[in-house]
Amino acid sequence: MYMGKVVGSVVSSQKDTSLIGRKLMIVRQVDSNGDPMNREEVAADTVGAGIGEYVLMVRGAGARHSLDGDSSRRDVMDAAIVGIIDRFDK
Amino acid sequence: MYMGKVVGSVVSSQKDTSLIGRKLMIVRQVDSNGDPMNREEVAADTVGAGIGEYVLMVRGAGARHSLDGDSSRRDVMDAAIVGIIDRFDK
Amino acid sequence: MYMGKVVGSVVSSQKDTSLIGRKLMIVRQVDSNGDPMNREEVAADTVGAGIGEYVLMVRGAGARHSLDGDSSRRDVMDAAIVGIIDRFDK
Amino acid sequence: MYMGKVVGSVVSSQKDTSLIGRKLMIVRQVDSNGDPMNREEVAADTVGAGIGEYVLMVRGAGARHSLDGDSSRRDVMDAAIVGIIDRFDK
Amino acid sequence: MYMGKVVGSVVSSQKDTSLIGRKLMIVRQVDSNGDPMNREEVAADTVGAGIGEYVLMVRGAGARHSLDGDSSRRDVMDAAIVGIIDRFDK
Repeated sequence: MYMGKVVGSVVSSQKDTSLIGRKLMIVRQVDSNGDPMNREEVAADTVGAGIGEYVLMVRGAGARHSLDGDSSRRDVMDAAIVGIIDRFDK
Repeated sequence: MYMGKVVGSVVSSQKDTSLIGRKLMIVRQVDSNGDPMNREEVAADTVGAGIGEYVLMVRGAGARHSLDGDSSRRDVMDAAIVGIIDRFDK
Repeated sequence: MYMGKVVGSVVSSQKDTSLIGRKLMIVRQVDSNGDPMNREEVAADTVGAGIGEYVLMVRGAGARHSLDGDSSRRDVMDAAIVGIIDRFDK
Repeated sequence: MYMGKVVGSVVSSQKDTSLIGRKLMIVRQVDSNGDPMNREEVAADTVGAGIGEYVLMVRGAGARHSLDGDSSRRDVMDAAIVGIIDRFDK
Repeated sequence: MYMGKVVGSVVSSQKDTSLIGRKLMIVRQVDSNGDPMNREEVAADTVGAGIGEYVLMVRGAGARHSLDGDSSRRDVMDAAIVGIIDRFDK
């Protein structure tokens, strides 16, 4: 699971049908100080995350198991936001 | 899911039979400013993406679930273009 | 399997239901000298690891096979701490 | 799918039985100019690729679906050459 | 599949039960000149590799298919040594 910050979203009208109706957020990976790393991904939001929030992100099959996913049907999604981070305890 | 820009295609006459008839595009990964990262892959196009367009790309099992894929039969494909990006909202 | 050091934990009240009740630890990857690498992840602790301890960490499907996981039910977890490292023998 | 150049092979007499009889080629990843990247892997050749040729390479489950693989039996292979690149069209 | 050199092992008394009895070796990734890369992992040895030897290493599901693994039962292992490299042919 990676820590990230939501920095925006992508608009795509022509896409795989399994992506229709999903919120596709741009997530920039961060470390546990909240400092940005040089890596951005697009993840399906499953927890109502807004721009500027710190989030937990999963990749691969885990993403198709998320609340918004359905591992039993065809689904191209390979990244999902699965939690909003309230606080880093260090 | 990664953001990328289609920069070309590869021609391969000798290949796995599951790749026959597929458009194999060269995709350069980009960030949400559209700036290129130092990473290129070959992905099967499933949405009619053209050279120069910004696209959404998935890897792994997700790619075999794409419109062009068939997760129930033998398929070596591990990367697919699954959407054309109209706009980055930031 | 990666070697890491537990550096903290994340608090998340809004998250996928499959993550409820799990200890989500921040793990910084290390090499076999115990020196930190520039990579942090959040992993579910399944062995009672505490902050400052060196641990073994798995990713992907392996994480859903851990003691704390359940590969037969819906589970978004894609990283788990599966051992505490007593010693590096070199 | 990655682009690579075959630079050699490995000889291994003591190995997993699922690897016996396979051609294990050393592949150096390249970009679409044919320039080498700093990454080498060992992949099972399934298309008769020779040293010096540019190839398409898949990783993970896709490799076990290749012509040389058998996804229904035990197989440790996680990388395969699945095509010979005739030409980069840019 | 990656090329690596065995540089040591880890001792872990508190660990997932699926790891009990396994030899957990520290493997440093190398290129085909045998030169070390900046990446170390812990892999289950399935071929009797000793410290200092060059080895073939697999990741992910492939590792759970190795001689020492059992893809049909619960197993957290995500990396395995599956061959000893006698020689790089270049």
